[in-house]
Amino acid sequence: MSQKKFRPPRGFRDFPPEVMLVRKRVLDTIERVFQKYGFLPLETPIVEYWETLAGKYGDEAETHLIWRFQDPHSGEWYALRYDLTVPLARFVATNPVPLPFKRYHIGRVFRHERPGRGRFREFWQADADIVGSPLPEADAECVELTIDAFKTLGFRDFTLLLNDRRLLTGIFEEELRLGRLGRETVLAIFRAIDKLDKIGETGVRGELKKLGLSEAVIEKIMKIIGIRGDPDSVLSELSSKFGHNEKVKVAVEHLTGLLDCVRSDFRGHIRLDLALVRGLDYYTGPIWEVVLERVGLGSLAGGGRYDDLIRLYGGPDLPATGTSLGVERIIEAGAELGLWSFKRKSTARAYVIAISDTVRDYAREVVRLLRDSGVPAEYDLMRRKWRAQVEHAKKIGVEWLVFVGEKEKTTRTVTLHNTKTGEHFDRVDLTRAIELIRKQ
Amino acid sequence: MSQKKFRPPRGFRDFPPEVMLVRKRVLDTIERVFQKYGFLPLETPIVEYWETLAGKYGDEAETHLIWRFQDPHSGEWYALRYDLTVPLARFVATNPVPLPFKRYHIGRVFRHERPGRGRFREFWQADADIVGSPLPEADAECVELTIDAFKTLGFRDFTLLLNDRRLLTGIFEEELRLGRLGRETVLAIFRAIDKLDKIGETGVRGELKKLGLSEAVIEKIMKIIGIRGDPDSVLSELSSKFGHNEKVKVAVEHLTGLLDCVRSDFRGHIRLDLALVRGLDYYTGPIWEVVLERVGLGSLAGGGRYDDLIRLYGGPDLPATGTSLGVERIIEAGAELGLWSFKRKSTARAYVIAISDTVRDYAREVVRLLRDSGVPAEYDLMRRKWRAQVEHAKKIGVEWLVFVGEKEKTTRTVTLHNTKTGEHFDRVDLTRAIELIRKQ
Repeated sequence: MSQKKFRPPRGFRDFPPEVMLVRKRVLDTIERVFQKYGFLPLETPIVEYWETLAGKYGDEAETHLIWRFQDPHSGEWYALRYDLTVPLARFVATNPVPLPFKRYHIGRVFRHERPGRGRFREFWQADADIVGSPLPEADAECVELTIDAFKTLGFRDFTLLLNDRRLLTGIFEEELRLGRLGRETVLAIFRAIDKLDKIGETGVRGELKKLGLSEAVIEKIMKIIGIRGDPDSVLSELSSKFGHNEKVKVAVEHLTGLLDCVRSDFRGHIRLDLALVRGLDYYTGPIWEVVLERVGLGSLAGGGRYDDLIRLYGGPDLPATGTSLGVERIIEAGAELGLWSFKRKSTARAYVIAISDTVRDYAREVVRLLRDSGVPAEYDLMRRKWRAQVEHAKKIGVEWLVFVGEKEKTTRTVTLHNTKTGEHFDRVDLTRAIELIRKQ
Repeated sequence: MSQKKFRPPRGFRDFPPEVMLVRKRVLDTIERVFQKYGFLPLETPIVEYWETLAGKYGDEAETHLIWRFQDPHSGEWYALRYDLTVPLARFVATNPVPLPFKRYHIGRVFRHERPGRGRFREFWQADADIVGSPLPEADAECVELTIDAFKTLGFRDFTLLLNDRRLLTGIFEEELRLGRLGRETVLAIFRAIDKLDKIGETGVRGELKKLGLSEAVIEKIMKIIGIRGDPDSVLSELSSKFGHNEKVKVAVEHLTGLLDCVRSDFRGHIRLDLALVRGLDYYTGPIWEVVLERVGLGSLAGGGRYDDLIRLYGGPDLPATGTSLGVERIIEAGAELGLWSFKRKSTARAYVIAISDTVRDYAREVVRLLRDSGVPAEYDLMRRKWRAQVEHAKKIGVEWLVFVGEKEKTTRTVTLHNTKTGEHFDRVDLTRAIELIRKQ
């Protein structure tokens, strides 16, 4: 028997309980925020027809990154889902939904990456999208929800970088004096700029040069994408300089509308950044990303408007916008910042210890009372001596030890010991014991 | 573009919001029960090496039912997970865990079934297992938790059928007078009996005949598997008749210990049934299934002891027992019994309606106050007229309509209307409004 059988496949992970307890807390928090904004859950299969994913994500995904496979029985080609946006587009293209359709989806997606530090073949995303509204209100709802999620998770020094692809395209048209730029050229420039984080300014200049752009043009591009700052002042400056360009005008109006709709106490987190372009080709309007200055993990969330995607599935011409939280990076960043730790090893709050074999029935009765009162509780399933029971309870990190011996059984009481605070209560009656344990 | 692109693959399903809201409620309830008993979450990948699953589930799974596939890039063979038990066995075989290790896992599994009514290629299971204890206490914990889950979900007339494979084997040894039965013969008889639900008594007789058993022996088998009833009386009868047989003796003792540990108010749901054998080969002791008399859906949950499985992964010789809830059948049965309905279309409890464009900013402010107070709330993202806003809010089934007009804006009040009760409150101040909405 090969050693392989003992491991998850390369690039895949088992999540042991102490990790899962944190992951669940994070995902539950995100889900509560999504629901607070009235988003509705949608679930789609892990497996899609290959044809559903083909031609949606660009060359690299198509040739390498999508997990595609052929069913050996039927010969049919399938693929594991690559993100949560394309399944949404497929769903709304064929199912009548009341508009706007606000859906959230928290689940795993798959990439055929070369496994390595921080690169996994299976990871979680948490998406919230609004289908049906072309208005800045909808983008604002997604931006506000994104900021709310980070605040609720406990992050403080984070920034939501905001941009609009039309803004960038319009300024290019005005500044680069290359005539009307074709969509392909613009997308190629975007792809070069998108690598800024990875390859730095010099790298981006090199990439732009490969596109055949002159030094003067490259200089201007670098200057343009250096524009960043407080959204209101940057927008008013761009408006007075390039407002005569139709694309700039539309983008400035849309972003201004968006910012007007975001609650004022959240606006301090937003910065306009013309270097933000986002990797995917399908964005058509505002785009955003969340970064943490103190943690060098790249973006923790991102999103934007994609008004043309649903039509690709033969659906109606439905505008859409949405945000996607990068669960893996959020969990990593939060751990680094001390927002959560992986120390908790138990869901139980109480462990009932039988001092002798003759009180095991009473121990069971106490466990049931605790559980019936909503207190997750455990007792010994190994017929261990009481000292070993205490040891196990401490090992799994249960807060309250609940001792029962002959005296406790006769008087229908328990003796309580709190492993964290050191509090101790001798032979308190059951009702009082449950109160004490529930209180904290 | 082929029509295929618009659909999930055959045998796979999209779950729209009204279905997801029910599924989430059911899964959350089950998870809370699991946690109440101190079980811990474990997550494993969707994808496993094919070698991990091979040779674990029997011939039919091996040749057809496991979704296996070859990575076109690496040539490596993988498989989609088939159940949640084998990943658990793989995990504990290689990761040191404190014993007993009580883990739960709620997630999707895959079967390469021919798609059809009620047969899916992707479906959900909810498992709770205890690794490390050979004692009846551990089986009792799983049985009690199973009954608790059904009660908490709202089921009333359900029965947990209980048996022990050693009981059946021992009685066969005594009654069939075939000498000491080989494991293979016994497993073949079990597989025939397991089809009772599907092919009926006549069918089972036919299957047994194919095994080369005489009419007299078949007659005895049918009589033995006809034994069922109150556990205590059946066990005491079997004990006095066959107690000299070592297997029967051990099984009766184990089942008696198990029943002693189950809380008395749950015992009425348990019935001993010698016709229960369970499909999988790996069970070694007590086995159980939950059936609903009124709904013809087969078993809704099942489990048992499997003391040899973990050793198969080269792990230590760890006894284990566990229970698996069939999420799909539970949801179907609950819907049939009226425990839940798929009518709810929203997570929002309030919809703020702007009577005119000039109060949209105030509407947004009210929405924020509601959300900050923990009330999921929505407002118009389409700049619709107020009547269309009301229509949309009713379509998605929001309970509270919160009207804001010029007067409300000036006085910082709202006008409330409850779409379910018909209650109406004119211009109440915001604090009072939030109280009224939260109350219900």
